[in-house]
Amino acid sequence: MADDRPIGIFDSGIGGLTVLKELHLRFPDEELVYLGDTARVPYGSKSKETVVRYTRNNIDFLEAEGVKLVVVACNTASAYALPELKDHQSPPVVGVIQGGVEAAAKLTGGRIGVIGTEATIISNVYQQALARLSPGVSVKARACPMFVPLVEEGWVDNDIARAVAHRYLSDLRGEVDTLVLGCTHYPMLKGTIKQTLGEGTRLIDSAEETANMVGQKLDRLGMRASSKEKPPKVRFYVTDSPKRSMEVARRMLGQIDIQEAEYVDII
Amino acid sequence: MADDRPIGIFDSGIGGLTVLKELHLRFPDEELVYLGDTARVPYGSKSKETVVRYTRNNIDFLEAEGVKLVVVACNTASAYALPELKDHQSPPVVGVIQGGVEAAAKLTGGRIGVIGTEATIISNVYQQALARLSPGVSVKARACPMFVPLVEEGWVDNDIARAVAHRYLSDLRGEVDTLVLGCTHYPMLKGTIKQTLGEGTRLIDSAEETANMVGQKLDRLGMRASSKEKPPKVRFYVTDSPKRSMEVARRMLGQIDIQEAEYVDII
Repeated sequence: MADDRPIGIFDSGIGGLTVLKELHLRFPDEELVYLGDTARVPYGSKSKETVVRYTRNNIDFLEAEGVKLVVVACNTASAYALPELKDHQSPPVVGVIQGGVEAAAKLTGGRIGVIGTEATIISNVYQQALARLSPGVSVKARACPMFVPLVEEGWVDNDIARAVAHRYLSDLRGEVDTLVLGCTHYPMLKGTIKQTLGEGTRLIDSAEETANMVGQKLDRLGMRASSKEKPPKVRFYVTDSPKRSMEVARRMLGQIDIQEAEYVDII
Repeated sequence: MADDRPIGIFDSGIGGLTVLKELHLRFPDEELVYLGDTARVPYGSKSKETVVRYTRNNIDFLEAEGVKLVVVACNTASAYALPELKDHQSPPVVGVIQGGVEAAAKLTGGRIGVIGTEATIISNVYQQALARLSPGVSVKARACPMFVPLVEEGWVDNDIARAVAHRYLSDLRGEVDTLVLGCTHYPMLKGTIKQTLGEGTRLIDSAEETANMVGQKLDRLGMRASSKEKPPKVRFYVTDSPKRSMEVARRMLGQIDIQEAEYVDII
């Protein structure tokens, strides 16, 4: 029995499109519905209570769209809200943290770094999850608040991006063998981060790891979509600035077929 | 007849405290009530409709606090919402744009620069106001989206701040004689901006100019407060993260006596 209901994905803004892209490439038969909460971006500087409330709003919207599964493609929301949503089992929810943590625990030589927004790092969620999975491991966590504005400005490999990466990360060079990119924007800075830390450091991209987890969950729940001749068009909703969001989405998603961004009032 | 009702001030976040500070120093007898809409910051990347809605919320809150006058200490809100609030005459409203525009029109040798968030620059409000006041003047406007994150990171005079200022502004060196700082965060970057543009360029700080306008308005309306032995304590409300907001406020306001930040739910 195939399940052709869509998969819902949300992020505070457009960073979560890195996760959508990975899902689309990996599971081309699945219909995807994306919600970018661009009116309330960023979540990374907000309190836990606020982020939990926004997350519930977003899941309610996607549920009303008839999704079979929700991907919380935002590290801050995954860190703060997933533990609060344990009672919320319909639809099932996948965050962006567990996949990266499991991959890091598997690959590491014992010294892991984690970078993210201030809220993600303060929440301690990565540090605790890694300590649970690999008790003896050392974890260095670091907030990198300027990385999201850099990516949104499109400055991912110029002198300023390199100077910012150097300031945040140069003292981790040689100190970590694996670095978890704990924010969905950060894969855009992979090259610059790699240059700062040296080729010997493995970067864990949570978009890839999250796609793995979604595949496993769909199989376990018997929820895979039927095969299609061509991938269904992506549905794209935002809570503000549809025009600009669409420009960014086209740049990030390349050839993927996506509907015009549609404004929704969920606030 | 003295009017001892407070003056209300709001901003999308904490940048507007530069305006509060100036008002406090200039008018120490006035009681000040500040609202930082930290749950919905930043306004600079949001659409006009959203910014107008948020502005109405904020003014309603301050009105319920019994203020005699509202200062919209946010350039984006002043640009988008003030024209929509012309019907809203109780309490009277002062924005942060008019003062800077008038000062620039008076001082310029004919070549004015304006910098601000993307929303402020796209709104064209500075450009239009300057063209109205000084018809022959040339105006170069430039969005500087990385300046607010720099100030919030506390990087106001390091190598990265200089590199960002250089990238945004170096081609204006020698091209403008007067630069309007069209965002309440930017006065913190004055030194770096001055270095980039050269000593010959005058910077217009809208916090100072707005305080001038408030003084004139209070006189015109007969609304000055009675003299006091010491300045009333500042009342400080935020829509999120009171603890962090308080830390930033203490850093920005120095010796000014301010109440603990109090969380308010106005959303």
